[in-house]
Amino acid sequence: MKTIKIVKIGGNIINDEKALHSFLADFAQLKGPKVLVHGGGKLASELAKQLNIPVTMIDGRRVTDTQTLDLITMVYAGKINKQIVAQLQANNANAVGFTGADGNTIISTKRPAEPIDYGFAGDVVTVNPQVLTVLINNEVTPVFCAITHDANGQLLNTNADTIAAELAIGLSTDFNTELYYCFEKPGVLSDVTDDNSIIEQITSESYAQLKADGVIFEGMLPKLDNCFHALKNNVQKVHIGNTTMLFNSKNKHTSLQLS
Amino acid sequence: MKTIKIVKIGGNIINDEKALHSFLADFAQLKGPKVLVHGGGKLASELAKQLNIPVTMIDGRRVTDTQTLDLITMVYAGKINKQIVAQLQANNANAVGFTGADGNTIISTKRPAEPIDYGFAGDVVTVNPQVLTVLINNEVTPVFCAITHDANGQLLNTNADTIAAELAIGLSTDFNTELYYCFEKPGVLSDVTDDNSIIEQITSESYAQLKADGVIFEGMLPKLDNCFHALKNNVQKVHIGNTTMLFNSKNKHTSLQLS
Repeated sequence: MKTIKIVKIGGNIINDEKALHSFLADFAQLKGPKVLVHGGGKLASELAKQLNIPVTMIDGRRVTDTQTLDLITMVYAGKINKQIVAQLQANNANAVGFTGADGNTIISTKRPAEPIDYGFAGDVVTVNPQVLTVLINNEVTPVFCAITHDANGQLLNTNADTIAAELAIGLSTDFNTELYYCFEKPGVLSDVTDDNSIIEQITSESYAQLKADGVIFEGMLPKLDNCFHALKNNVQKVHIGNTTMLFNSKNKHTSLQLS
Repeated sequence: MKTIKIVKIGGNIINDEKALHSFLADFAQLKGPKVLVHGGGKLASELAKQLNIPVTMIDGRRVTDTQTLDLITMVYAGKINKQIVAQLQANNANAVGFTGADGNTIISTKRPAEPIDYGFAGDVVTVNPQVLTVLINNEVTPVFCAITHDANGQLLNTNADTIAAELAIGLSTDFNTELYYCFEKPGVLSDVTDDNSIIEQITSESYAQLKADGVIFEGMLPKLDNCFHALKNNVQKVHIGNTTMLFNSKNKHTSLQLS
């Protein structure tokens, strides 16, 4: 089986046009099959302010009412996704933009309103990789924004880290899958104030200990839970770090494995 | 060769949610390969007003400055395109949304600033149907909004009628192509105030006469020029009317042929 890289980039790159263009030029050169998943960045909140749409965040997650869903569909699937696709084309990578509705690739279900009503937030139920596999085998790079659908016509706001993990799992039927979470830090840190404190290897055992010791906490927990969920479901490797880990194999970052 | 229908719908359907959903339910049932191309409707202008972005139209065409390009990318490629894709999925038609940047399918060139500067308006140069053909042969329906790219990273606003014609021409290498222009009238009318005055057949000869006599004028001229351009470039059939012509072959509408 061929190996495919599923790469998730976050707001820190999306928000910095120069960094984004530089990353996309490098990403376009990455050999072999690949999928890009991008977060939303600050643009949606800025536009919400201009349009007087209230922004409500609970535990770092956006509450998605009807107006907000329209807004993020415009910003994530429209402006950001299409600018990324156009930039990849300019760098000779043949990209096609996706939401989970496109190709019926990611079906999710609206999160229950209890205990917290996140509105039109979707939890992934099914990944259908067929359309993606056809495109990837034709040297196309799918580019996903963080929107899915419920297969009944409703678009749903879905966490980009989760989308990356579920796509990696879904594609592992046809490929050896490697999942890369790129963010602003060089890896999972044992001391969040020290970028040199990268934990280079985390296993499910050491993860339990790191949680118990309070070394890993808050925002990193759902990210690492996603990683181990992926590893337990046929994803071969998961890496966490900044984008340089993709282009320089000697770059220090965090690698995760089951044991 | 298989026959493919390229169907363009305009603002009158996009602006009416109930009409759009009803159309998409019917369109999903259309047998055989198909492509949908949609216009933008009034939403972009409404949002421009909310965001205090000036709307400038010359001869019915939008002048596209940077802010307006961002806006239409959000509205056309984001909200409208993804809602259409999600609705088609809900009706069991496996759709994938496209701009011309996706799959490098439509490359255009920025229109010269003389005699009229339309800003980021693109005139189609090349259609690359390879990705579309792969998807269509896998029973996927591409759904295009009216945005293309210049292959150097610049998105461009492009007339939806033109996109439909150029896609039909580009796909005619692999398919027998039939182009359907759906609009608010039942066809090309000899008397614009009388919906019963449908001209059922127009040839290039009779078109010249209808133009000379002033029967066809203004907005219909570029539409019909697109039609004959398509017919002269291997498109088999072109039809103009309202959407019922797609679902009821006995429905009166205008059919165009070279002679």
